[in-house]
Amino acid sequence: MPQNNAMPKGLSFTTHHDLPVEIHDNLRAYVSELSEVVEEKSDDYSTPPHALQLPADAHIMEEVAIAAKRYSSPHLKYVLVIGIGGSYLGTKAVYDALVGGEYGGSAQRTKLLFLETFSPQALENVNRILATEVHSSNELLINLISKSGTTTEPIANFQLLYGDLSKRFSDIATRVVCTTDVGSALWIEGARLGFGLLSVPTHVGGRYSVFSSVGLFPLLLAGVDVDGFREGGKDMLQAVLSLDEKKNYAVRSAQEMFSALSLGCSMFNIFHFNPELESLGKWERQLIAESIGKEKDLSGKVVYAGITPIVSIGSSDLHSMVQLYLGGPRDKFTMFVRAEVPTDPRIDPRGVCGTLVEGTTGKTSSEIMEAILSGVMHAYEKHHLPFSEARLPEISNYSIGLYMEWRMATVIYLAKLMNVNAFDQPNVEDYKKKTRELLLAH
Amino acid sequence: MPQNNAMPKGLSFTTHHDLPVEIHDNLRAYVSELSEVVEEKSDDYSTPPHALQLPADAHIMEEVAIAAKRYSSPHLKYVLVIGIGGSYLGTKAVYDALVGGEYGGSAQRTKLLFLETFSPQALENVNRILATEVHSSNELLINLISKSGTTTEPIANFQLLYGDLSKRFSDIATRVVCTTDVGSALWIEGARLGFGLLSVPTHVGGRYSVFSSVGLFPLLLAGVDVDGFREGGKDMLQAVLSLDEKKNYAVRSAQEMFSALSLGCSMFNIFHFNPELESLGKWERQLIAESIGKEKDLSGKVVYAGITPIVSIGSSDLHSMVQLYLGGPRDKFTMFVRAEVPTDPRIDPRGVCGTLVEGTTGKTSSEIMEAILSGVMHAYEKHHLPFSEARLPEISNYSIGLYMEWRMATVIYLAKLMNVNAFDQPNVEDYKKKTRELLLAH
Repeated sequence: MPQNNAMPKGLSFTTHHDLPVEIHDNLRAYVSELSEVVEEKSDDYSTPPHALQLPADAHIMEEVAIAAKRYSSPHLKYVLVIGIGGSYLGTKAVYDALVGGEYGGSAQRTKLLFLETFSPQALENVNRILATEVHSSNELLINLISKSGTTTEPIANFQLLYGDLSKRFSDIATRVVCTTDVGSALWIEGARLGFGLLSVPTHVGGRYSVFSSVGLFPLLLAGVDVDGFREGGKDMLQAVLSLDEKKNYAVRSAQEMFSALSLGCSMFNIFHFNPELESLGKWERQLIAESIGKEKDLSGKVVYAGITPIVSIGSSDLHSMVQLYLGGPRDKFTMFVRAEVPTDPRIDPRGVCGTLVEGTTGKTSSEIMEAILSGVMHAYEKHHLPFSEARLPEISNYSIGLYMEWRMATVIYLAKLMNVNAFDQPNVEDYKKKTRELLLAH
Repeated sequence: MPQNNAMPKGLSFTTHHDLPVEIHDNLRAYVSELSEVVEEKSDDYSTPPHALQLPADAHIMEEVAIAAKRYSSPHLKYVLVIGIGGSYLGTKAVYDALVGGEYGGSAQRTKLLFLETFSPQALENVNRILATEVHSSNELLINLISKSGTTTEPIANFQLLYGDLSKRFSDIATRVVCTTDVGSALWIEGARLGFGLLSVPTHVGGRYSVFSSVGLFPLLLAGVDVDGFREGGKDMLQAVLSLDEKKNYAVRSAQEMFSALSLGCSMFNIFHFNPELESLGKWERQLIAESIGKEKDLSGKVVYAGITPIVSIGSSDLHSMVQLYLGGPRDKFTMFVRAEVPTDPRIDPRGVCGTLVEGTTGKTSSEIMEAILSGVMHAYEKHHLPFSEARLPEISNYSIGLYMEWRMATVIYLAKLMNVNAFDQPNVEDYKKKTRELLLAH
């Protein structure tokens, strides 16, 4: 792919530490190698890192758009996303960011509902919403997402829901879309039952799949400007494949995380200063944990590699975790993330309680939040705690797309530096085996 | 206080590791000392650990009940809790547990809304709910909670909301209750403005305040059986002051956490297997982080003490974090927490997709979740990862009360073992100073 030196619009990334950030030769070679392989106009997904080209894949977008058009209507009130792990975390990250987090989203015509873990209580909550608010089958679409098609939680949840729904709506089979690998057991069963089918490229893992049908289909149905989201990802794709290291934020971020880890930081603290980005934090938490947490390196040697990602929310966690972060063990590397917000109310200088907190009256909420964040970064510097700072000009489809593509590339590069496989999760099998035995024994 | 050897009803706590758990002499002496001081029928709160006796304090309960009676009515739709950190985390923990977590709570006549961090988006969400669903002032109560009365976020949020509300409702001052220290700046300003006032005992810190007016007042208004909740706390109070170490779960839990920390575990992983307990996890996260994370020990020596609490949710995080937990660094001590659930749907053996996941059809959801949890614990044992297991017979007012009192005592004992002050948070001042300067400079 030709070099493009365009900076991703809007994202800024600043270092506040003296960790070594000189780029390792093997990382430089890998970026060069990837930039030859990953292409903007390719639908070749023969290796896992090809997932990075998804935001630019017009073919997948077209497939998703056709499907969305088929199921979308002014009547559609809920899209129930049934999936776990990488099958929902990216979609929820984008959705929560754009609808405003907790208590947000009331203005959406079509809302997303997520059913992920296997919990009678969560199932009951979803059932109650379906029972009271869905009165005809065209008000609902079920998107069952499982790459392998054999994941216990989503399949069991679907089975429990489908039984009831098929009694209420005789045509419910026409309101189910399965997103899965072509030819998986779910693909075959879905085809038999007349469900809609959307494919995921085989080598695209769940945690790298937000720009595939996994994320795009439900987001499009919920009215999200998916083109803007993909545009952000596409612009960042240029940057993360750039050999100009000043402009390649992914290389820089991976290198500083690697240095921090080598120097004793066992945790990476993703510190979001917009509460509606908490789900984005949880998406990145999975991305880092599963990609880097490895018993063995690429040569098969036992290394117990990993950095534990933790998610903090400002300013809430200043009243919850910051005592530990400032006073406790020096074992964390932090990235502060802050996006500007469009609405910005100002505190009335003539209002009540004006004397209780010095300096706040007459200020806008952004001014106050900036003073808080600056205070925190100042305290981190005073305590010699290493951190970096990412700034988004706004919370938008475009900027979230930028951010997610950036973090996926960063993790792939960090895995390279650590000599581990960014794309597998072999130890998950360790519990699944015993679970299967127990389920089959009774 | 006389010894009572009654076991707390229902909570079971099992050790799955070979960490040293012999009780240190200084902890034993401290329990003995506390059991002399902390009394079931006392309203003496002259030292911070007296907070443990709150569940048994009839006087505080009476004050709260009178206030709740004054503001409660069949018209009351929303109680808006404005507070941050310890001022809301406990209340939200209980509320979310009992109404069912995300998408839960629709059946409540009176709902709690929480406004914590300072975020234009969160404020806009709350404003929208108030604008569309609150039509007269008696449908709303604002509970502004700040122990000091000078916390930036809640005061600023309140100022922004109150301005608009006073234009809509001329009697809005009659619908505000401040929960704060007697004589604080907020207490004085609230009295002047005709707001209701509820006191918190001076030495009860925010993170130990859920059984005080801070938690009891909004919970009672939301229809929570506060008596059952206090009963759980009271029964556990007996146990955590017991000198019979087999029955004192707090001493045992503190001792094993201390051993794990001494042997290199830098993180305590609270692994809830009921998603509706995520907020309970966040409450405990603050409790541990602020109480134990300390730059200096009691002698003033710089120690950078602390264990970083992280919250995991089963089974979601099996598809997100467990690869890291099983394969990554050996730096975590885990506590699995699982409560039985009353509704327990069974998967229809004749339903669709029955062949996709072996062993699930015909099973109830609890049977499947137990098999998953057993599989995980089995994998932890295989990997020699230390953990303990807490079981609740149900999610109820009583069992949540048990659990919270247990964890507060545990943290107090752990601080004792680590020779740090469980009740202060001096480093929080490190960022506040600079923030104040910045706010006053402009």
